[in-house]
Order: sequence, then structure tokens, then C-alpha cells
Amino acid sequence: MNQIGLVGRLVREVELKEVGEDKVVTNNTLAVARRGKKENSPSTDFIPIVAWGQVAKLIQLYCEKGHMVGLTGKIQSRSYINKEEETVFMVEMVVDEVHFLQNKKLETAVK
Amino acid sequence: MNQIGLVGRLVREVELKEVGEDKVVTNNTLAVARRGKKENSPSTDFIPIVAWGQVAKLIQLYCEKGHMVGLTGKIQSRSYINKEEETVFMVEMVVDEVHFLQNKKLETAVK
Amino acid sequence: MNQIGLVGRLVREVELKEVGEDKVVTNNTLAVARRGKKENSPSTDFIPIVAWGQVAKLIQLYCEKGHMVGLTGKIQSRSYINKEEETVFMVEMVVDEVHFLQNKKLETAVK
Amino acid sequence: MNQIGLVGRLVREVELKEVGEDKVVTNNTLAVARRGKKENSPSTDFIPIVAWGQVAKLIQLYCEKGHMVGLTGKIQSRSYINKEEETVFMVEMVVDEVHFLQNKKLETAVK
Repeated sequence: MNQIGLVGRLVREVELKEVGEDKVVTNNTLAVARRGKKENSPSTDFIPIVAWGQVAKLIQLYCEKGHMVGLTGKIQSRSYINKEEETVFMVEMVVDEVHFLQNKKLETAVK
Repeated sequence: MNQIGLVGRLVREVELKEVGEDKVVTNNTLAVARRGKKENSPSTDFIPIVAWGQVAKLIQLYCEKGHMVGLTGKIQSRSYINKEEETVFMVEMVVDEVHFLQNKKLETAVK
Repeated sequence: MNQIGLVGRLVREVELKEVGEDKVVTNNTLAVARRGKKENSPSTDFIPIVAWGQVAKLIQLYCEKGHMVGLTGKIQSRSYINKEEETVFMVEMVVDEVHFLQNKKLETAVK
Repeated sequence: MNQIGLVGRLVREVELKEVGEDKVVTNNTLAVARRGKKENSPSTDFIPIVAWGQVAKLIQLYCEKGHMVGLTGKIQSRSYINKEEETVFMVEMVVDEVHFLQNKKLETAVK
């Protein structure tokens, strides 16, 4: 059982990458305000996120850097080899659904 | 908004560490079975977890390596300096509540 | 294990009720947009919510009818006797944390 | 945004109903232990659940009355007309994924 829900802001512009066989993926980081924060502790968590296919396209279509979104999905772990040929272990959220709390198109229309 | 719920198995024995001023903490990793797994993708996610105070004590009292537990809490990020004096960024689950799906004391009693 | 997270709009004005011994409570309903809606099915879910004490006070202080909020907490059931002396069973969300996605004070200040 | 995760026990035997066009549905109730219970307050919540199609079939295949399961999904509301021709409003969980924490087949095999 694996369930995560976050509301926060996208830290970078949304870019789609093609990864063979018509699949697209987008990676970003969600800045999530931390509640009940203690002194000397950070007030924001930065959670890496990844979205695939249709979900990735929707994020790219409706969101830009700084936009607030609600995301639901799962937390996953993976390892990869970085440029220094070291194995890096990482934990990231895989997005199942995105909820737009702010709208790029709408704002453009309003301007 | 930040909410995570996992059911999985503790990967290591539970150890409490004292961190000044009567505070205790326990770190572990939860092995979570991945659903709908695709070929060539791992079938298990390994999510680092941390629990403080009373929650840590409860986990230590009732759980051991391999036990299945349900955990609810938040996902957080932090950075630390490792032995090689490199800054390491990590994402981990901070546990608010633990739900025992298997019981150390009970099993001992049954034996 | 019991965990729920919703983003939606408050359907009624927020009113605090005192319930003996300095305790306060507020009841409301959250209108939550339904995703992936099918034909002939409603597009909004109406989820009864209840908040106690400090959480209730915060909602009253910062929210009004129609405001969008993020809520995390638990789902609970209870029975009560209504005016017709029938037993009514109900399911409602008990709020642990509220996340303001819109701000009454701020809006007042901006005007 | 709408996300719920529960671990509890099925209150009734699992029965599939056909609802036209090859669709199947199963209704049940999940008994969920309440944490941090106060005096005079119930220790269990009874949450109505509904599952459709493949998810319903999996529950019927692997679960029986009293089995512990983990469920993730959404909370929804709906109204219906009962036998007394009154409109009844209800809140229930729609199951997206089921996680078997106990196995009917396995137990049968062990016997």
C-alpha cells in the first residue's frame, strides 16, 4: 500500500522528454510548505516528482514554474549511475493525478 | 499539504538513538511491494523512514526486522554532510502514526 | 490505518459551537470536484467535515463560504438520533490539519 | 483532490452483483480500528466501500468476511431513494486498489 498526496509549487519550468516508443516523461521538484515548523528547521520540503504519458502532457499544458498544484500518486525509489560513475539512490513521487489550483491558460486569457 | 501512507516491512532491526534533551529517534527503511509492476522494473520500493519520541519507542517495543507495519505521516527532504564531506540530499518519510499488522510480543507469547 | 486528504470548497459559512468544558467544534461540508467523471454521474462530491479545538478556530479565522482549502485527517462513522427519533448513521471527515489555499484576511486587506 | 487510504476488516461476505453491460460491483463495509480513542467514544469506524470491475473481482477472489485488507481510493457522496421513498444521502469509499494482508487461498492451502 503506497499513497501520497501533496500540494505545493513547481520549482522549474515543465519540460517533456521523449523516451522511446512514443512515451513522454517530465521531471520536476515540488516545493511543499512544512507545517508546525520548529526553530532551525527548514520551512519547505523539496520533493522530486516524475510524471508519465498523459499526466505529463497535462502538467506541461497547464502549469509553469511557480504554479501551485495538488498531486496524488505513489512514492518510489530507484538507483542510477551518475556522471562520476557512482550509484545514486533516490526517492521520488510518481504522479497519478494532477489537480490544477492555478491555471496558465486562464491567466494568459485574463491578461 | 503533505500526506503519505505506506504498508510494508521494516528492513533492519529497530534501534533507538538518543539525540540530546531526552529526545529519541529511530531510522529504518520500509520495503513496499510495488503494484502493477512492469517488466525490468523493480518490484519493491525502499523508502527511508524516521520516527521521533513516543512513536519511535512504540516501533522499538512492538516491531522487529521483517515485520509488516502500516505507517502514516509526511514526506520530507533534508541535506547533510557525509564522511567524504559531500552534501547529500535525501527524501524520507517522517512517521506520525504506526499501525502494527504483526506483533513481536504476541509472537513471543505464542511460542 | 485511516488517512484522507481532500481539496475543495466550503459549502457554508464557518460557525463555531461550544460543546462544554471550553471545547469548540465546527461542522461544514466540502465540495470536491470529481475527476474522470462519467456521463450521468455527478461532478461534485459533498463530504461532511468536522473540526475540533484549535483547528476549528483556524478555519473560522481564515475561511468563509466558498473558499478553497486543503484538509487532511481521518474518516469516521457515527450514529445519532434525529428529530423524528430515528437512528441516523453518518460518515464524516475529522480534520487534523487545514491548509489555506485562499485567505479571507488577505482578500480583505487587498480590497 | 481526493485521496483515502484505510486498513481494516471486511464486515460481510463478498458478493458480486452484475449491473448491466458486463459490469460488476461489490459493496461492503470496512471496520477500521480508531486510534487515540477517548472514553465513551467508539473504538471502531464502519466505512461503506464500493468496488467496480476488476477490483471487485479481486476482492471476491481473495477475501472473505473478517479478512484484513488495505484499500486506497476516493471518498464519494451519492443520494438514492430507499424503500420508504425517502431520499438518503450517503458517503462511501470507492476503491481503486486493494492490498491483501491476509489470503483466503493461502489459508485454504495450509489447512
